[in-house]
Amino acid sequence: MKSPFYYEDFEVGQIFTAGSITLDAESITTFARSYDPQSFHIDAAAAQDTIFGALTASGWHTAAISMRLFVMAMPETAGGLIGRGAENMAWPRPVYPGDTLGTTVEIIGKRTTKNPARGLLRIKHITTNQHGDTVMEMITSVIVQRKN
Amino acid sequence: MKSPFYYEDFEVGQIFTAGSITLDAESITTFARSYDPQSFHIDAAAAQDTIFGALTASGWHTAAISMRLFVMAMPETAGGLIGRGAENMAWPRPVYPGDTLGTTVEIIGKRTTKNPARGLLRIKHITTNQHGDTVMEMITSVIVQRKN
Repeated sequence: MKSPFYYEDFEVGQIFTAGSITLDAESITTFARSYDPQSFHIDAAAAQDTIFGALTASGWHTAAISMRLFVMAMPETAGGLIGRGAENMAWPRPVYPGDTLGTTVEIIGKRTTKNPARGLLRIKHITTNQHGDTVMEMITSVIVQRKN
Repeated sequence: MKSPFYYEDFEVGQIFTAGSITLDAESITTFARSYDPQSFHIDAAAAQDTIFGALTASGWHTAAISMRLFVMAMPETAGGLIGRGAENMAWPRPVYPGDTLGTTVEIIGKRTTKNPARGLLRIKHITTNQHGDTVMEMITSVIVQRKN
């Protein structure tokens, strides 16, 4: 069993990737009925008359899957990965039923905080579909535990 | 039945609010098992030994609920509300089982786009708990349909 990562083990430039997650129409509509009940996310027939022309996943579903892929990609981290915020979040392309999403995360910054037990990582996330097209990107600030 | 809103009907300074959504422990752990399976989001006992000291909702669950509250708050909008991106997203306080969340959204900017059928709204979202504390905030860019 490998030792968990602490703040000190992360370096700017490190890149982590994970496996992939495939979305089917049922998972898209199930998520959207709870969280984003608009016709293009919950009704394949009605979606044909919308801007997308077809059923698409809520951007917040893509974000949630990107979080899951992030947890899969990152090394086990002492104390877990605590999101403090996000910026530059964009959904340049829709996600359709059958799409397979993967993610790449890169450590682009790190700094200590007032609390000596914690440090802050700045992380660039890129989520892509099976064609290699970016479907979501963002930069997050994530609190991790310091070793000492 | 009221006419749906178009880009032209939105004005900077308009504020919309919705009802509220209460989260229980089961909805928190169900969401997190799929999208953010870290101990402080999926296991109330294990969560006691974490930074939060108790079970808390994934920030992406709070984001998804904020989207639902946004759809509830906004007037019916022709063509729907299409997220293009988000910025300044922050989770200043955790969300616990039993918390009741509400949202306030304010139109803080609007502009036309190259596509004459669409316009872009800039929207400030503030999601609060039953104590009036902010649990999430963000600014989104949302594509809406133009009348002409």
